Amino acid sequence: MSNIYDCIIIGAGPAGLAAALYSARDRYSTLVLEKFYPGGQINTTDRIENYPGIVKISGPDLIAQQLKQVEQFGATIKTGAEVKDITALPDGNIKIAAGKNEYIGRCVILAVGSDYRRLGVPGEDEFRNAGAGVSYCGTCDAPFFRDKKVVAVGGGNTAVEDTLHLAKFAREVILVHRRNEFRATKVLVEELMTYVNKPDSNLNLRLDSVVAAIEGAGKVQRAIIQNVKTNEKETIDCDGVFIFVGMVPNTAFLSGRIELTEAGFIRCDTGWLRTAIPGVFAAGDCRVGAAMQLATAIGDGVNAAIMMKQYLRDRNWWKQPIPGAI
Amino acid sequence: MSNIYDCIIIGAGPAGLAAALYSARDRYSTLVLEKFYPGGQINTTDRIENYPGIVKISGPDLIAQQLKQVEQFGATIKTGAEVKDITALPDGNIKIAAGKNEYIGRCVILAVGSDYRRLGVPGEDEFRNAGAGVSYCGTCDAPFFRDKKVVAVGGGNTAVEDTLHLAKFAREVILVHRRNEFRATKVLVEELMTYVNKPDSNLNLRLDSVVAAIEGAGKVQRAIIQNVKTNEKETIDCDGVFIFVGMVPNTAFLSGRIELTEAGFIRCDTGWLRTAIPGVFAAGDCRVGAAMQLATAIGDGVNAAIMMKQYLRDRNWWKQPIPGAI
Repeated sequence: MSNIYDCIIIGAGPAGLAAALYSARDRYSTLVLEKFYPGGQINTTDRIENYPGIVKISGPDLIAQQLKQVEQFGATIKTGAEVKDITALPDGNIKIAAGKNEYIGRCVILAVGSDYRRLGVPGEDEFRNAGAGVSYCGTCDAPFFRDKKVVAVGGGNTAVEDTLHLAKFAREVILVHRRNEFRATKVLVEELMTYVNKPDSNLNLRLDSVVAAIEGAGKVQRAIIQNVKTNEKETIDCDGVFIFVGMVPNTAFLSGRIELTEAGFIRCDTGWLRTAIPGVFAAGDCRVGAAMQLATAIGDGVNAAIMMKQYLRDRNWWKQPIPGAI
Repeated sequence: MSNIYDCIIIGAGPAGLAAALYSARDRYSTLVLEKFYPGGQINTTDRIENYPGIVKISGPDLIAQQLKQVEQFGATIKTGAEVKDITALPDGNIKIAAGKNEYIGRCVILAVGSDYRRLGVPGEDEFRNAGAGVSYCGTCDAPFFRDKKVVAVGGGNTAVEDTLHLAKFAREVILVHRRNEFRATKVLVEELMTYVNKPDSNLNLRLDSVVAAIEGAGKVQRAIIQNVKTNEKETIDCDGVFIFVGMVPNTAFLSGRIELTEAGFIRCDTGWLRTAIPGVFAAGDCRVGAAMQLATAIGDGVNAAIMMKQYLRDRNWWKQPIPGAI
């Protein structure tokens, strides 16, 4: 069974639903395929205060608003539809296989998102939202930990950046890293060490160490740290644990089908979001160069849906450089 | 007098205020310089239904929400501050001259937006306000033309949208377009033609035609229409002329100071929004390659404010290609 749509969007998170709003409102036949249920990563956020225009909202409430908008304009959303394959057909259309169904899209927007890499330790899932105390995003949630004590985990660029960011808000930050050297770039590590070595610094390190467990009642109250060389354990009383051990884009099913980076991000031109396959756009946290914020993911969804119109009008547009771009 | 800020944002429209929210929330000292008052172009929009997450809002209400967010986090907003000059200093900081004041920014985000394009015909400037009869904004000024006769000009999305809006108020609307096909999206053109073809429609077309002059005494009394194929002229007695012929970026003050396209858009890499001057980003409708939508302008503001952090840490980042970009 085959159905032809002007636009098939894979993923019903903020980027995918933003694309669907624009595509459907422009009266393109629009299908959204979602592996689980709408929302993705943002569903785990109970308090968003950095989406411009909305002073405060929860992730699920934002998604409910986006769904309401999309449904007004008549896009079809299929949940529980896990895409397994994507193929460029000789006629230039794109075939999408999801379970037993096949769909044909004149355009496809990949908005599959990313997931935070988990530590996989006891307590991590139980307290997984900023209100309960486990967070994966310093930029998003640091302001909620003003004058509190937090543990941070990681050793890469984001870990060091976000830990320095946390230290602007929290009373005290303990950064736990399993090696005794940081992977982050030199300039970041220098900034980190300068900050740590200040007199009365509110940022301290536990190197060669891991978080073995996160404990509390209803919310985070302490982290159990273990030194990987001595196996010694330490209990740190704290209000939150920030886990900065990377992002995993949800692109495993695209491997070998579209160009990905080593880390699994979808390669595209970062201005108009065109991938290596004509007609296939990438939007949001799954693409290279993304700022990984809600507003930028939503901007991407809109951008892809606007640019799609150029391609539907003229397939030669795909190879056109962006006029005036540096 | 000189003040040093981490981030100076020029323009307090949606893009500038989005950048300010992120910059201030990240505790960077943040100054927003606005020529008039906050909002810019979006202030003239009374109904937004395509900003993801908000089902319906007016432009001024959206800006009020953005201002509330920005002020929560302590950015300084100076209104009536028209920037006249921008200079890269030998130390890499950026000097901004606004009136008698000078400010130094470690980074600058240009979010100056775009303005209405003028026709440049006799009478246009003389009658340029809704009271006298020339307007660029159907949403703002249509109610002043209730039961009157007006001429509208243009063929793009805004032209068609605003002409349909005008027809709800005016006794009669004549839409003048210099080609015989509309650039507007299919759905809009369909709506327009359905409306025009109604029996006794109050909306009529003059295709392949231009407005050659606007005439009157004290206020608009007639428009001179010229057919571009036959050169025939027609005088239409009317009370107003609505000009919907596009946007011009507000970048005249940047000419010779930063790389612009011929049309005046700021040249940048469209992924991370870096202009030709290190430390100076461009965000929103004033840059090359922009989708010219509210959500994409806001995404740009956030993107620039996130990327700014990379540059503040390491100036060599400015020349770095976006990893994995095609």
